[in-house]
Amino acid sequence: MYQINDNYQKLPGSYLFSTIAKKVAAFTEANPDKSVIRLGIGDVTQPIAPAIIQALHKAVDEMADAASFHGYAPDLGHEFLRHAIAENDYKKRGCSISEDEIFVSDGAKSDSGNIQELFDVNCKIAVTDPVYPVYVDSNVMAGRCGVYDSDSQTWSNVIYMPCTRENHFIPEFPKETPDIIYLCIPNNPTGTTIPKTKLQEWVDYANEKGAVIIYDAAYEAYITQEDVAHSIYECMGADRCAIEIRSFSKNAGFTGVRLGFTVVPKVLTCNGVSLHAMWARRHGTKYNGAPYIIQRAGEAVYSEAGQAQLKEQVAYYMKNASVIKEGLSAAGYEVYGGVNAPYIWLKTPGQMSSWEFFDELLEEANVVGTPGSGFGPSGEGYFRLTAFGSYENTVAALERIRNL
Amino acid sequence: MYQINDNYQKLPGSYLFSTIAKKVAAFTEANPDKSVIRLGIGDVTQPIAPAIIQALHKAVDEMADAASFHGYAPDLGHEFLRHAIAENDYKKRGCSISEDEIFVSDGAKSDSGNIQELFDVNCKIAVTDPVYPVYVDSNVMAGRCGVYDSDSQTWSNVIYMPCTRENHFIPEFPKETPDIIYLCIPNNPTGTTIPKTKLQEWVDYANEKGAVIIYDAAYEAYITQEDVAHSIYECMGADRCAIEIRSFSKNAGFTGVRLGFTVVPKVLTCNGVSLHAMWARRHGTKYNGAPYIIQRAGEAVYSEAGQAQLKEQVAYYMKNASVIKEGLSAAGYEVYGGVNAPYIWLKTPGQMSSWEFFDELLEEANVVGTPGSGFGPSGEGYFRLTAFGSYENTVAALERIRNL
Repeated sequence: MYQINDNYQKLPGSYLFSTIAKKVAAFTEANPDKSVIRLGIGDVTQPIAPAIIQALHKAVDEMADAASFHGYAPDLGHEFLRHAIAENDYKKRGCSISEDEIFVSDGAKSDSGNIQELFDVNCKIAVTDPVYPVYVDSNVMAGRCGVYDSDSQTWSNVIYMPCTRENHFIPEFPKETPDIIYLCIPNNPTGTTIPKTKLQEWVDYANEKGAVIIYDAAYEAYITQEDVAHSIYECMGADRCAIEIRSFSKNAGFTGVRLGFTVVPKVLTCNGVSLHAMWARRHGTKYNGAPYIIQRAGEAVYSEAGQAQLKEQVAYYMKNASVIKEGLSAAGYEVYGGVNAPYIWLKTPGQMSSWEFFDELLEEANVVGTPGSGFGPSGEGYFRLTAFGSYENTVAALERIRNL
Repeated sequence: MYQINDNYQKLPGSYLFSTIAKKVAAFTEANPDKSVIRLGIGDVTQPIAPAIIQALHKAVDEMADAASFHGYAPDLGHEFLRHAIAENDYKKRGCSISEDEIFVSDGAKSDSGNIQELFDVNCKIAVTDPVYPVYVDSNVMAGRCGVYDSDSQTWSNVIYMPCTRENHFIPEFPKETPDIIYLCIPNNPTGTTIPKTKLQEWVDYANEKGAVIIYDAAYEAYITQEDVAHSIYECMGADRCAIEIRSFSKNAGFTGVRLGFTVVPKVLTCNGVSLHAMWARRHGTKYNGAPYIIQRAGEAVYSEAGQAQLKEQVAYYMKNASVIKEGLSAAGYEVYGGVNAPYIWLKTPGQMSSWEFFDELLEEANVVGTPGSGFGPSGEGYFRLTAFGSYENTVAALERIRNL
């Protein structure tokens, strides 16, 4: 008899956002008259920008004609998109990342879930706590995390780096040396960030200890402060220790369009083995590229019109962030984030647990947020709200919360 | 120091189609005056059908308006697409597969590469030989295949089931009992198939031995003979032992559009553990769905207009298959396949190896095919041509081959 990968059995409950979706579905079914405002899952609400819509239509028309039809994409992605990425996201910021170090994909979630495959099963991961659940869960599935302790809500073989108000949400170097370090900056879920000087310290630490950094920069478009790096490759020596994962979901509203990319520098090696070659092999073997028309949409993100329209879209969401942050502060809540990121991280009132506050918010204010404890043990007592709703809904949600 | 997954180091050379792409690129660069006809990689050439183009444009317009914009898709895929699949691919054929047993994805290559994650690392796989390289390579990466012997071109821990002219390309039950059996019917690369009665024997064998079948039905649209099953779920008991992977690449020309799905029946369990629940967990954790607009394109595949247009497209390619098959036969080649599949499998002339024939065909006829040995040791001495070129190119390629 065949056997299953029993690491899956170790995972407690279901994926965080699936659980929330089920809870909200149950509530709306039981209360069909209530209008629920969703500031939970981090899904965007603004439509795709006109310049991108135009590019999509044009690409669709190309697919209708044998002369301009596109079949399988090149393994790394279409050159026009990789060129636009290299120029705009890297060369303009002084990072020497070339087109053939960029791997186009269907999104940052897939890449951040799949990247762990390149590493030995005995590698030990370190994560900030709280953290985007995919990093840990994908490593659990691969058998790297040991066993789960439901009391402490921690895995026996994961190094947690708490980020709380006590340390201003800045992770400290762990006592035990990790092999793989996951960093998401600006941070999901806390909405906080670290200055470039601090990030340089992490790069130096990784190079000194022989660790690899998986750097999730999905929220870089929301950075407003000068001293925050948009890419880890702005730091000296990062190309020797870091893989960077990027998304189009939040800067261009592509949550339902699906596009992302991962940068694996050619100089990044482990005992002489090129991680670039390994990731290329994985791409070639287990993936067949993002759709041609979606890659053209990605290219349009970098057009002059696209950039102008998306700057407005980001500003729209950051205005929501201000509404939430200022509104909650005025109502006496303790709030963090929302300056360089579209997330607001709040301390739950009184001694409420994250899920207690989730339930109260859903039932009394009909507002959906995300319980901080769903992101890790140090998230207990915190709660995440996103700025990705419409302005009207955001204002309405704040009014409801203040009336609690 | 972190360590890599050294299973990747065991993989010989590069992915088959990457190697071919590089060889062809080198040839065209050295011979810019030569017009190369590609009947190699299995990429389609006909444009996307009008009904699908219309659906794509409509979906793009929906994304331009906040009221009709779609963000993250439901974990399993949009209900409208899963409904169309369940109705058309299953209910109409008498298979009791429900909407929530269908997982929409970006294509059969990703799914056939990822599905092995559900199984224990000690499971032993059985593959037909020759075989689509992804099945074996993805298991090598996971550490299931043992070591590679370059003389025999086999993996020490893989069960090979030779499919050659000697056994009419019908795999026999292996001597050693496998845990996971990969079957691709109609077959890539041989273009041959097995009758439903034979497939039923495989289902019975799997249920009796406690094996799971990974059934790749990517080419079912090309079936012309009545006694060939379009889905493994046409066989009794298949829902207790089989996972079916389907593609839109060949039936609808989606190689550059990217869409597929995998069926995991709810009754499929291993020691009481639901494989459906495991795959749902993987989808929820490491994937974020196919693009909304592409899922709408998939829905249009099943519309009345879409079905009529795609029937013509399939007929177009099958006419090419006839051209190749009859042309090669008339030229004295020994040919197989091409009746229920868009692939022609030919015996190389004389004692030529597959790669020798590849080189001769590329250099002398400027035609690209795929060496049979790239699909496994029993593919040595065979060669694959695809029917996915344009009719004009197919006729021209045959003319060139006959003049060799």
